[in-house]
Amino acid sequence: MSSSKTAYGDESPIAAVATTAGNSALSLIRCSGKGSIELISSVFAPAKIKDTPGNTVIHGWIAAVDEKIDEVLVSVFRAPKSYTGEDSLDICCHGGYSASLAVMSILKTAGFRDALPGEFTFRAFMNGKIDLTRSESVMELVSAKTDIGRRHAVSRLCGSLEKEINDIKDLLVRILAGAEIYLDYSEDEISADAEEIAGRLPNQDIAHQALERLKKLAISWQLERIYQEGITLVIAGRPNAGKSSLFNMLLKEDRSIVTETPGTTRDWIEAWVSIEGIPVRLIDTAGLRESADSVEKIGVERSRKLLQEADLVLYLIDGEYGVTAEDQKYFGAKHLDAWHQSALCESGDVSAKHLDAWHQNALCESGDVSAKHPDASRHLIVWNKCDIALAPTPFSIADLIPICISAKTGEGFTELTAAIASAILEKITGDSELPIAIGTQRQKSLVDTTCNLLEEALALTEREEPLDLIVPLIREAVNALGEITGEVSTADILEEMFSRFCVGK
Amino acid sequence: MSSSKTAYGDESPIAAVATTAGNSALSLIRCSGKGSIELISSVFAPAKIKDTPGNTVIHGWIAAVDEKIDEVLVSVFRAPKSYTGEDSLDICCHGGYSASLAVMSILKTAGFRDALPGEFTFRAFMNGKIDLTRSESVMELVSAKTDIGRRHAVSRLCGSLEKEINDIKDLLVRILAGAEIYLDYSEDEISADAEEIAGRLPNQDIAHQALERLKKLAISWQLERIYQEGITLVIAGRPNAGKSSLFNMLLKEDRSIVTETPGTTRDWIEAWVSIEGIPVRLIDTAGLRESADSVEKIGVERSRKLLQEADLVLYLIDGEYGVTAEDQKYFGAKHLDAWHQSALCESGDVSAKHLDAWHQNALCESGDVSAKHPDASRHLIVWNKCDIALAPTPFSIADLIPICISAKTGEGFTELTAAIASAILEKITGDSELPIAIGTQRQKSLVDTTCNLLEEALALTEREEPLDLIVPLIREAVNALGEITGEVSTADILEEMFSRFCVGK
Repeated sequence: MSSSKTAYGDESPIAAVATTAGNSALSLIRCSGKGSIELISSVFAPAKIKDTPGNTVIHGWIAAVDEKIDEVLVSVFRAPKSYTGEDSLDICCHGGYSASLAVMSILKTAGFRDALPGEFTFRAFMNGKIDLTRSESVMELVSAKTDIGRRHAVSRLCGSLEKEINDIKDLLVRILAGAEIYLDYSEDEISADAEEIAGRLPNQDIAHQALERLKKLAISWQLERIYQEGITLVIAGRPNAGKSSLFNMLLKEDRSIVTETPGTTRDWIEAWVSIEGIPVRLIDTAGLRESADSVEKIGVERSRKLLQEADLVLYLIDGEYGVTAEDQKYFGAKHLDAWHQSALCESGDVSAKHLDAWHQNALCESGDVSAKHPDASRHLIVWNKCDIALAPTPFSIADLIPICISAKTGEGFTELTAAIASAILEKITGDSELPIAIGTQRQKSLVDTTCNLLEEALALTEREEPLDLIVPLIREAVNALGEITGEVSTADILEEMFSRFCVGK
Repeated sequence: MSSSKTAYGDESPIAAVATTAGNSALSLIRCSGKGSIELISSVFAPAKIKDTPGNTVIHGWIAAVDEKIDEVLVSVFRAPKSYTGEDSLDICCHGGYSASLAVMSILKTAGFRDALPGEFTFRAFMNGKIDLTRSESVMELVSAKTDIGRRHAVSRLCGSLEKEINDIKDLLVRILAGAEIYLDYSEDEISADAEEIAGRLPNQDIAHQALERLKKLAISWQLERIYQEGITLVIAGRPNAGKSSLFNMLLKEDRSIVTETPGTTRDWIEAWVSIEGIPVRLIDTAGLRESADSVEKIGVERSRKLLQEADLVLYLIDGEYGVTAEDQKYFGAKHLDAWHQSALCESGDVSAKHLDAWHQNALCESGDVSAKHPDASRHLIVWNKCDIALAPTPFSIADLIPICISAKTGEGFTELTAAIASAILEKITGDSELPIAIGTQRQKSLVDTTCNLLEEALALTEREEPLDLIVPLIREAVNALGEITGEVSTADILEEMFSRFCVGK
């Protein structure tokens, strides 16, 4: 434990494969740390790499004493002109599984150790190359699932959030500067004029302005988190309602029900898709139900979880048959005894009623069956096969008006994706292009802390409390903002933060 | 069709992601072609990249007109000092899925096109940077599954095969030179001395020497192919014989029966392992049998295929119970009617006899049930649980003597892996470290062709046929060797060859 604690802080030579292993043309190994260029020269031919100037690429071989290991290109970076601010090297070796493993093994023999997660970026931060918001944006960029997610991360990488935080901090510092003038006077020195404002915070308008900007940031996280983490969308409905067709349509490509890997049977099919820039984990439950006989118990358990965890459920109605008893049961569970339903699901008696049990179980788990379907708000009703059968008008189920589509002809597809996007973004303030947004939960917590401190300070001001009660709150707020950018930080927090990065970053 | 034909031959700017997409720190995009550095400068800030000397790394941003796309490091290479021999750039951008996609999209707007598979190496070959054997070794290196496979590929990348082929070709050219002296004389000019040897090939000893070296190369492919492609090893046996324990033992790590991906159920478990440097696709059929009720038909079909395709089957006997009727039936199928067995497998009556049907089906497919188990030569018998029950001595089944192990204590593990390795390598000439070996089927076919031509030439010499019949054969042999290194080549063959490479290479 303690050794891993100290590891993040040292300057020892570290190395890591920074690309994904796979059947690729190339792999990249990143090295950094004190003496790393000299260490490489001991396992590299030509050895002149030792004298290579920074920002130069040199071609050669990684070699053990008696054997050439791999033909590589090595980019040499000299401190402080590198990502980490230390002497660094990027080794571009052959792809696949063997070459990079063999090179890593030679590097470790030469004296490098495996880099910890995020250790390169940690060093970049410690050496003052980037602030914390930018460090975090590196990881956000790598995990971006859609182009909007990437653009927001790039904006933070360019320093948009750092600048906003520093601007707000400057406002608070101005308030502090104003307030501390008054605190410098002892009470009997204060003139009538001064006394009048002694209990009040100077520059209250500035404080309000700062608060407003902070709140805007806090709100940005709601949307940002969705762009980063995405949502889970489950397609449910009766057999043959067209779930798989809709799934393929949303996927915009033909995808077979079973995966291509031989010998693999998935109980459900899922894929990440981008719907209007939002990463959506799309789940088709068709496979689940159809293989119900064999894996009944696991199936019931899994479907219950899927429906519970879904941020949004697309419930498909088969236009050809209209709303069936089964569909009604799914949405009108209020008349069923919760315990009975639960018993049904556990009973294993799924020969005929499996689908019911499945949905009911999801319902009873919710713990609220007294009213209409408890999570109707998470549902979109989709009327499929509108090419052969139109939905009756007016028509609604569980107070929801269906979106009519034809998974066959593609009709209604645009409306459906728009409805999905607006259902997701419903309660979130829509925003213009590339707003300044928070990128991590850590930043969000610190912004919230700052807001609370500022609100408390303003409330005290309102009640005309003395400045020496108010000023410490503002000072704390300034510190919280400093923590966001990393001006103020503790080793524990940093380690916790960087250890969530991927290795090689 | 014709446009893709011409594409391989042009010099237009090409780009490809050369690393695997995944949750990695970095991705590498490779660019090459006429004007590629100028093209990049139009989407890169700072624009001074246009004037950057070769082998230099420059830090900056890939940017569209109104938006920064990604912060990157670009390595600039100037013709002819690059992998392809053209102006080239390696763009090191952020990992994950979004960044490299976004950068590729900008590059294509700027005028790059997607590189075809192997197109970078194709250009390297066309520009005389590497011969064909080295080109092919690049792909062999990337696909190497074990360290031995990698080392052999590296040896070819260093030119070991190229040198051997050229050496052999030089021998043949010497013979040709000697022979053509005689051909230059018209018949009536030939002296008595000359006449005496006119019907004979000069330097026959050299021809024999060349033939011997070629045959050694041809043989090397047997082993090399195994190191490259690996073998399939299936673990079979009665329930609870310890198949999964043996599987995990060979895997040298604890691996659960089900895969870690939620929602995935595999019918069998497989993994690539390295057994004495040989890549082995290890298959545990336990999962298959145990889920037999539900997927009976598919299961029977799959197991039949698995057992048929296996290069080696480890048949496990449960030491606790000894050889059961079931085991005997597996090996002693001679008394069963082939048609009856086949009927059994197809009948779907697997409630109790599934395992039997499974094995029998594999047997009847072989078309030979008259003698002992038809593929006993592909089997190793493993007596498990030797920690609690020793095998009786003497003991054999289907003429095979069991290897005794305990999957629990690890006893006999070394002997087992040695037995597996020697079963695989049995009929192959064992060889010293890093022999000169053939790397592809293409090379093997050409070596075979050369051998045949040379043998025919020697046979004609033996029969004292005139030189003008023999010399063309030697010339053809020289050409075949030239095709191996690419001295002699046709556009069709090259395209066919490089199109099997991965993109980015």
